[in-house]
Order: sequence, then structure tokens, then C-alpha cells
Amino acid sequence: MTPIGLDLAQALADLRSQAPLVQCLTNIVAVNWTANVLLAAGASPAMVDNPAEAGAFAGVASAVLINLGTPYSETVAAMREAVRAAAAAGRPWVLDPVAAGGLPWRTEVALELLEQARPTVIRGNASEVLGLAGASTGGRGADTADSVESAALTAIYLATRYDCAVAVSGPVDYLTDGRRSRTVANGHEWLTRVTGVGCALGALMAAFAAVTKNGLEAATAATAMLTVAADQAAATSSGPGTFAPALLDRLASLTPDELASAARLGNA
Amino acid sequence: MTPIGLDLAQALADLRSQAPLVQCLTNIVAVNWTANVLLAAGASPAMVDNPAEAGAFAGVASAVLINLGTPYSETVAAMREAVRAAAAAGRPWVLDPVAAGGLPWRTEVALELLEQARPTVIRGNASEVLGLAGASTGGRGADTADSVESAALTAIYLATRYDCAVAVSGPVDYLTDGRRSRTVANGHEWLTRVTGVGCALGALMAAFAAVTKNGLEAATAATAMLTVAADQAAATSSGPGTFAPALLDRLASLTPDELASAARLGNA
Amino acid sequence: MTPIGLDLAQALADLRSQAPLVQCLTNIVAVNWTANVLLAAGASPAMVDNPAEAGAFAGVASAVLINLGTPYSETVAAMREAVRAAAAAGRPWVLDPVAAGGLPWRTEVALELLEQARPTVIRGNASEVLGLAGASTGGRGADTADSVESAALTAIYLATRYDCAVAVSGPVDYLTDGRRSRTVANGHEWLTRVTGVGCALGALMAAFAAVTKNGLEAATAATAMLTVAADQAAATSSGPGTFAPALLDRLASLTPDELASAARLGNA
Repeated sequence: MTPIGLDLAQALADLRSQAPLVQCLTNIVAVNWTANVLLAAGASPAMVDNPAEAGAFAGVASAVLINLGTPYSETVAAMREAVRAAAAAGRPWVLDPVAAGGLPWRTEVALELLEQARPTVIRGNASEVLGLAGASTGGRGADTADSVESAALTAIYLATRYDCAVAVSGPVDYLTDGRRSRTVANGHEWLTRVTGVGCALGALMAAFAAVTKNGLEAATAATAMLTVAADQAAATSSGPGTFAPALLDRLASLTPDELASAARLGNA
Repeated sequence: MTPIGLDLAQALADLRSQAPLVQCLTNIVAVNWTANVLLAAGASPAMVDNPAEAGAFAGVASAVLINLGTPYSETVAAMREAVRAAAAAGRPWVLDPVAAGGLPWRTEVALELLEQARPTVIRGNASEVLGLAGASTGGRGADTADSVESAALTAIYLATRYDCAVAVSGPVDYLTDGRRSRTVANGHEWLTRVTGVGCALGALMAAFAAVTKNGLEAATAATAMLTVAADQAAATSSGPGTFAPALLDRLASLTPDELASAARLGNA
Repeated sequence: MTPIGLDLAQALADLRSQAPLVQCLTNIVAVNWTANVLLAAGASPAMVDNPAEAGAFAGVASAVLINLGTPYSETVAAMREAVRAAAAAGRPWVLDPVAAGGLPWRTEVALELLEQARPTVIRGNASEVLGLAGASTGGRGADTADSVESAALTAIYLATRYDCAVAVSGPVDYLTDGRRSRTVANGHEWLTRVTGVGCALGALMAAFAAVTKNGLEAATAATAMLTVAADQAAATSSGPGTFAPALLDRLASLTPDELASAARLGNA
């Protein structure tokens, strides 16, 4: 058990034994990488993102990821169906409001989805979390222009407002459910030099949401797993290019005990 | 010559010398990986998948792949045009009915395309092959919940019904044209931990269909090439992440003689 | 300073220090790889390609890439908005007319965009450059059926006609602004065995266009950077699969001095 009362080793063991089916409605940039991260970690990805099928599939999936990286009219319609069906079936779902704040249309879509049904986790960088709350100082696409610290109070506000966990990614990740707040201090700079790492992290949170008790546990376990594996992968890589496949290798080989002992979690 | 009367070495030599132009209408998850697999193997990919161009291009392509992994209204319209044009021009085409059975809309699209024109090969996992015939026990997205053996009779039925070859992917691949049946016993578990490997295999079958005599030969040669290269790649990889680029390296370096001697083909 | 009056080392140092925000409206095949190339090189990618957001974002991006690899009705509408806004805001933009000539619809789209606003760079292979001018002998999708030399006069014509730089990719790259012409003689055969390398090169030209004086400088610096990194990467790779991540590593580690000393530029 970690100081925060989460049994990381058990969470990873459960992920591997249950192999949750994670429906991803995500962007064209990260979709391949996201599927490979889920497969390496031990989950089962299914990218069902058209409006004719997304709703029905969300009713049988273990969890749903909604990522707004490259929204189109047809995929946004599918997202509405998936959120509706996930809520009706009691499935966890994760929202990744990529570039929220800076881009008005997708920010409205994100807020509309949040009004439609309570999410399990909202995951973003500091600018996106601020942007979702209408407090952005202006991110640059998927990049952040704000520090994790500057978004902490807004994360607590959003967690309270939508009754969910909020995960703010950064050099030290900040995670809150509005009452309890955690930090995860693992990770490597190359995580910011591979596109879609944050997107894949959101998908991994959805996977863990299917095997843990709540959004804060899911977000913490996913962040710890990805960043511990990143620490291991960086040690044997020569740059961001070779780091990416090495990260997949480490996600596949990481044992529950290694995760529990290497994760640097804290209360915040 | 193999025991099944297919000269694998000649097939690969022909693929390399003719570099067939393979038009792929495929999914957003596997499209990059599929192009890289075709390039590494020696074919020439062209992902022309909009309705304004797909039909005209199918008339000049060497072969066409239709993959239903992430169908949208616009790409499905393009698929109809491509199948129509491929049939009119006498080009081989391969259908990969991803997640057929579990998802009704795409299953209908797949069946409609099959009624439109005789395919050269239908490729899927056991659940997809069963699902296409209305006999699915329920797959999970691109995953299979059924054994290859359980789908063999259905594969023979589909091959007879649509006058084509049917390839069932699995630990031991099963291939049939309704009269003759083959097995390919190469491959590695990591093939199931890299997203889009089955999708790329369908594209490789389309490539071989342009240089071999029939769908059964094309499906056999493609399956043997991919799985023999996988055997080689797994020996030098440390996980599914590094396995994927190593597989591309081996597809590029595999010689016709190596393929012929390492392939473990059998009659079934 | 190189013989052509371009300070390559300074251009790369400026790219790294300014990290230009490059909006990419590109194809589903190359979009992940393009983002990773930009991130590795030191730029900041943002794939904003829907019509509701593309125009507004182009007004704040440092540069815009328009790539016609897999155009759809919705993304083409977004391209029109992005070009309009980039022109209005005085931002550089790069056109990559993938498969122009062979496919009439996208060729019309490309010509329409060129009429709409002067581009900074047009980048293509020889067949695409010839095809854009109505002089194609017939490429095969993204492949070229023509030599760089055969497209040189057409490149000069297009550069004069649209008042921009034109970059013709090939074994020796040819770059012109209609008055001055350059060659870049670095590179490796594996660049043609990894899908989307040309697409990523167009994006890198957009990135350099934000930090150099004109399109010819931007196209030259981007071509030199990519091909010098390729020379380095090929030396430590065992095939096209491992070459791709190695190329990203080298793009990240390449120093301004290494670039200036290894680039083989010439006047043509």
C-alpha cells in the first residue's frame, strides 16, 4: 500500500488479469500510439468512433476515452452517443479536452459532454485544465503555457463542479478529486518529445478506471505506470525516437512490485 | 516448391521486382503501420480513400485493400467506389471485416461489398470470420473470442459462398479457398501486442494477390512472409515496442530463400 | 555561412530557441510521424484541421502546412480557412500537393489554394511538381515516376508563377525560387522506405519558414536538417524500421555546427 492508500501493485495485477476493453474516441495523431500503449500495458483497445456504432459499443466496453485532439463533425456525434451510452450503462469514461481554452469550438464540445454525464476523470495539461474552466492564459495547441501549480486550484474546482477526478499532467503530475490531492513525481523530459503521450495516458486512465474503485485511483495508477516505465525506458534510449518503442517494452515488462516500489507518490 | 504447390521464393521475388501499387482504404489506427509494412516488404502503398478519387485510382492500382476498422460515411462511400472499379478493371481486392459480427453497421457494409463484387481474399480473426457469417459468439472489437479451429468450417462456407480465399489469423493461421485448406505455423505472441498487424497482413495479401495466381496463394505467401519475419524479429527484440521496427527491418531484409526454408506450411 | 549565403547553423539555432508553432493540416498516414519529426527537431506541432477551428488557429500559428495526402470534404474546407487566415495574418504556409497530377480532384484543390494566397514553399517529388503544372507523366500515388532533373524547369516555372520557393525531393534535392536554385546532396535510400518522410519534410519547411527570411532558405534548411540526420541515423540502423526512430533521435541531437559542416549544398 502506498502512503495514499492505493495498492498500485494490485491495480496493475488487476489490469493484466482483466484486460479491460477500452473504447477510444480519439484523435488521428495519437490513435495508433494509444492503441499500442494500451496493448503493451495489458488492456484491450477498440477504436470505435463512428456515430452508428459508438453508442452500442460503449454499452459493452469496460471504459470509454473521449479525446478532443482532432474533432470532426462525425466523431463529435459519435462522442455524444458514447458518453450517453457509457453513462446509461454505468461505465467509467475519461475526458481529455486537448487544447481546451485556446479553441472555442472544442471547448464548447467538452463542456457539453461534461453536462451530459459525470466523467470519471478529466485529464489535461495545466493550460487545458485552466481553459476548460474559462481561466486559460493561452496554451499553444497541445502544449501548455502554464505551470501545474497554477492549475491546482482550478483542478479542485473542476473536480468538485463535475464530481470527478482531475489529472493535471506536468513534470510533477497533480491529481485531485476535490477532497484529496496527490502528486506523482516520476517521468522524463522525453515524454514531452513524443506526440500523444498525454493522449495515451488518458486512455490508460480509462483502462485503470475499469479495475479500480474510483477516478482518483485510476488516474494515479495510470500516471504512475506510464512515468515509471518512462524512467526505465529513458535509461536505455538515445533520444525521443528510440524512447517511444522502449517505453512500450517497459509498459509490457513492468511488474506490479516494480511499479509499487518505483512510484514516487505524495499527498499534495 | 512447398508441399502445397506454392513457390514461396518466387512469390517474394516477384513482389520485390514488380513492387505492386496497393490502394488501401483502411482505418486511422493502422494506416501508418500498414504503409510501412508494405514499403518494407517491397510493395508500394497508396492510401486513396475519398469518394472523389477512390474509384478512378482502383482502376490503375495493382490491388485494393478494404479494411473496416474505423469506417466513416465518407470512407464507406469511397470503399463502394473502389470495389466497383476494382471489379470492373479485374483487379484483386481484399476485404478485412474488422470486428464484424459484434458491430451491426460495419457487418452490413462488409456484406454489401461482398455482394457487389467477388473478393480475392477475406481476412479476419476467428470471431470476425464467424461474425461475417452470422455465427459469432461475440468478439471484443479487433480481438477474437474464438479459436481458429472453431472458425474453419465457416471459413470454408464463406470461401464457397463468395468464391474467394478466406484467411483466419491466429496462433496457427488457417487458409482455405473452399476446396483446399492450408495452415501456416510461424509467428510470435508479440504480433498480438502491436496494433494493426492483422490489418497490415490484409494489405500484404493484396500486394501478393497482384503477383500470384489466386487468393489462396496470395494469402499463404503474405501470412508466411509476415510470420517468418516476426520469428526473426522477436529473436532480437525486448518487447512489443522494439519488436515492431525490428519486424519492418526483417520484412525488408528477408530473402526469398529464407522465406521458403523457414515457412512452416501444412495441408489442413 | 554556406556557399549559398544561408547560415544553416543559425537557422537551426533559431528553430530550437523559438520552437515555432506549426499548424499541420495533413493526411492520416503521416500525421503521427509528422508531429514526432517536428517535436524531435525542436518545433511545436498542432494538428488543428477542422473547419470550425482551422482559420482562427492559423492566425496565431507560426506557420501552416497544407498536405493533400488524404483529403476529405471536411479537411479540405478546413484547408481553405487556414490558407485564408494565414494569408491575412501574414503567416508562412507550405503546400505539399501529394499525388498531384495523377488524381484530378486534389490537383484542383491544390491549384485553388494556390490561387487563393501566395504560398511560401511548394514541396513535392518530381511527379507531383510536374503534375501540379499539368505536365505529369504519371506518378503512382505518393511515388514518383520522374527524375528530379526532369522537373527542374517546371519547378522554376511554378516558383515564378506563384512567387514562392519550390522544393523537388529526390536522391539529390532541387530547390528554387525561380531566380536562384540550390541542391542538397545528403540523404539515404531508407528515406523512401518510411512512409511520410516527404510529408514530414514539408512540415519541417513550414517550421523553418517561421525563423528564416524566405521560402528558399526555409526549404534548404529543412532539407539539409532531415537528410543530414538521415545520414547519421542510417549508420546505426539495420533497416527501414529501426531507421525511423533513429532518425528522430538524430533530429533531436543534431547540433547547429554538425548541420552546417555535414550539409552538402550546391548551386544548380
